[in-house]
Amino acid sequence: MAQKPSIPKGTRDFNPVEASRRNYIFDTIRTVFREFGYAPIETPAMENLSTLLGKYGEEGDRLLFKILNSGDSIVPLAGKVDHDPANIDSNALSMMVCEKGLRYDLTVPFARFVVQHKNELAFPFKRYQIQPVWRADRPQKGRYREFYQCDADVIGSDSLYNELEMVQLVDDVFNRFGIRVLLKINNRKVLAGIAQVMGYPDRLTDITIAMDKFDRNGLEGVRGELLEKGIASEGLSRLEPLLLFKGITTSKIAFLTRLFEEGKSEVGLKGVEELKWLFDMIGQVGVGQSVELDLSLARGLNYYTGAIFEVKALDFSIGSLCGGGRYDNLTGVFGLNDMSGVGISFGADRIYDVLLGLDKFPDTVMDAPQVVFFNMGREEAVYALGCMKTLRASGISCELYPDEIKLKKQFDYATRRGVQMVAIVGEQEMKNNQVTWKNLVTGDQQTGGMQDFFNMFGI
Amino acid sequence: MAQKPSIPKGTRDFNPVEASRRNYIFDTIRTVFREFGYAPIETPAMENLSTLLGKYGEEGDRLLFKILNSGDSIVPLAGKVDHDPANIDSNALSMMVCEKGLRYDLTVPFARFVVQHKNELAFPFKRYQIQPVWRADRPQKGRYREFYQCDADVIGSDSLYNELEMVQLVDDVFNRFGIRVLLKINNRKVLAGIAQVMGYPDRLTDITIAMDKFDRNGLEGVRGELLEKGIASEGLSRLEPLLLFKGITTSKIAFLTRLFEEGKSEVGLKGVEELKWLFDMIGQVGVGQSVELDLSLARGLNYYTGAIFEVKALDFSIGSLCGGGRYDNLTGVFGLNDMSGVGISFGADRIYDVLLGLDKFPDTVMDAPQVVFFNMGREEAVYALGCMKTLRASGISCELYPDEIKLKKQFDYATRRGVQMVAIVGEQEMKNNQVTWKNLVTGDQQTGGMQDFFNMFGI
Repeated sequence: MAQKPSIPKGTRDFNPVEASRRNYIFDTIRTVFREFGYAPIETPAMENLSTLLGKYGEEGDRLLFKILNSGDSIVPLAGKVDHDPANIDSNALSMMVCEKGLRYDLTVPFARFVVQHKNELAFPFKRYQIQPVWRADRPQKGRYREFYQCDADVIGSDSLYNELEMVQLVDDVFNRFGIRVLLKINNRKVLAGIAQVMGYPDRLTDITIAMDKFDRNGLEGVRGELLEKGIASEGLSRLEPLLLFKGITTSKIAFLTRLFEEGKSEVGLKGVEELKWLFDMIGQVGVGQSVELDLSLARGLNYYTGAIFEVKALDFSIGSLCGGGRYDNLTGVFGLNDMSGVGISFGADRIYDVLLGLDKFPDTVMDAPQVVFFNMGREEAVYALGCMKTLRASGISCELYPDEIKLKKQFDYATRRGVQMVAIVGEQEMKNNQVTWKNLVTGDQQTGGMQDFFNMFGI
Repeated sequence: MAQKPSIPKGTRDFNPVEASRRNYIFDTIRTVFREFGYAPIETPAMENLSTLLGKYGEEGDRLLFKILNSGDSIVPLAGKVDHDPANIDSNALSMMVCEKGLRYDLTVPFARFVVQHKNELAFPFKRYQIQPVWRADRPQKGRYREFYQCDADVIGSDSLYNELEMVQLVDDVFNRFGIRVLLKINNRKVLAGIAQVMGYPDRLTDITIAMDKFDRNGLEGVRGELLEKGIASEGLSRLEPLLLFKGITTSKIAFLTRLFEEGKSEVGLKGVEELKWLFDMIGQVGVGQSVELDLSLARGLNYYTGAIFEVKALDFSIGSLCGGGRYDNLTGVFGLNDMSGVGISFGADRIYDVLLGLDKFPDTVMDAPQVVFFNMGREEAVYALGCMKTLRASGISCELYPDEIKLKKQFDYATRRGVQMVAIVGEQEMKNNQVTWKNLVTGDQQTGGMQDFFNMFGI
């Protein structure tokens, strides 16, 4: 009995159309990263579990895909351990048969890479990385167990010019995609200042986690969550005007300045100063996309310490397309302190959905060759293969239909593949150094000299 | 205590120089595949173990990386099983906690893909796939546990034009790399014919496995191995002249024809006919690289049924750079019969070593930006960022040094990164719409108008 083929749940095959479109996304992002001076690195899919564990919280540890040690059988263990499941630490046990896990994001491997190779690198180190990551999340619409991240980071400099560069990167990437986005910016120091003036300087994490849901849950949601976590109503009264504040950037900055001056929050004032510098520079340098200071933007990740970013599509309803921020001690856990950096991550899957939904994939993103030559017999094929050499040398994709069968069938293939043009070199054409071509889109058919044919492709 | 960062044995980090060079290899191969009408697909890193097991022989099964079921703990199992390890089938047990494995090559996932998506595809289906594979092999020099394969296959056609196309693909790829190679060709039907005239038609696998080592072990090695496997000396006397035969292709073909006519081997004669067609066509179409009919070429893989290929570097000592062949029933195990195809696989790691060893990486393969602008203060930086927009719009990579520090330190960074040119826009330059640039390779320094600066980059 033959097996019915399938793939693990939460994973995907990409057919030629999808893979071509994905390549367009990766190539575009890669081109922009490169033009901004970012250099590529690659890290292995498998990392030591000790590198990964404890870096993503308890939830993250649970969602790591663990790899069975090769050659090991798990059986001998059964003899070694206490057999009452209640007495066994299952994490410890799985560590005995699993020492490796699949990478969960590109940030931790990047931090590991920087520390491991610090003596070979020139700092500030600007790297990009476009690779898949794996998470054992429950699969659902739009959430996969294998997906690509496209990250750019600059580490080893606390200059705010790096924050500006992230804004320019985002601007450039989405300009090229032809997608209108809103880039929201906030600053973790401002959030720390708010926690301070609320009277809860040590509750920043709880406060940001609740704030992060302001978009979804509204003021009441944030209020309810924080009250439940023991934040007093009085503290909340300092937070709420901020979440609701409307106005242009300068008003927001004035509002924050007043708040932190009154509340004597140094960290808050430092955050405002950073935001002011960044927005001033954005104004001077100029960007094509919309940029907004969003005081409710929090981003859940604990390692951010300065500017934070999030990108939303303006014309398509979907989660954020891109996010990032400033961190001060990503590499500390691997023994290298005082390495400040900024990073940004583009989500290829959501960008794909937006480009598709808004019909923004360029016509040049094709999975089919530009020309299919029909197979008219051996001599003719040799002749056609000669033309094809010229076309390919100019980057034009083309192929010879492999079988000498009825033209009707060869036409069917060309149509089914979505080829734009078929070319026929029969006995007559060969004698006269001509080609007959048919544009399958316009229906236009013509016989002309070989050079006329090449001219159509700018050759 | 901070962890000392490391990666699993047999895996690699690629630094910016290495990753840039690898991207050049992948991009070159991808470009050629595309120009020949191959369309990209991607399959998940994880496949169901049922898809992978039994496809690569016992050895292969052992070398699969297995992934622990997520959420599962392996502990409850301990209570269910007989605790005497001797009584337990460890493969069966690991199947209970592992249902997924990392892909071992791109061929089996491709066959699975074709069957699973057959109704969406236009046949003959031409696909390329450039993705990593994983094998739990003992790591050693040049052998890794994670490495990329670059495969092109055309399936759903038994036309010999596809074999010709593989030869052209190989020719084109290595021409672009500027590597001189020898493409060796043989045919499995010829090998089957030889087994037949040797008197051992059912021992083709043993015979090809031994022949495959002729290069390494010589005639005595092949002889010894086959005698040990019970092939009589008389049979061997039919094989040996063939292994030793020297001469041009037409002599080899004549020799084979005579052999198979005398021995009445139909399959052998069919193989010779295919080889003759292929070599005739190669002569007519013309290729730049050397092509040879190598009667000792066997290739170990069982699924080949027609032409087989192998590529060796002519100017560098290393294993084969590329290999492939015709198969007739790759998809049979997944329930789709009569799908003949030809495929070829390029080994990126070895190509990397050859390009590096022969100093053939183009100068344009760089991990550093083309220009670094020094940071001379805020106003100057805004001005510089303006120039950089123009450069980037023309594809020139550039960056602003993020910190306003001593020029000496900024120079050091540029040198350390291997940047070719630094640009300075100070107060004077800004006033006169000028740039000062220094070529760090030639040492040449100049101050000129902005447009003169752009002209250097063809803008």
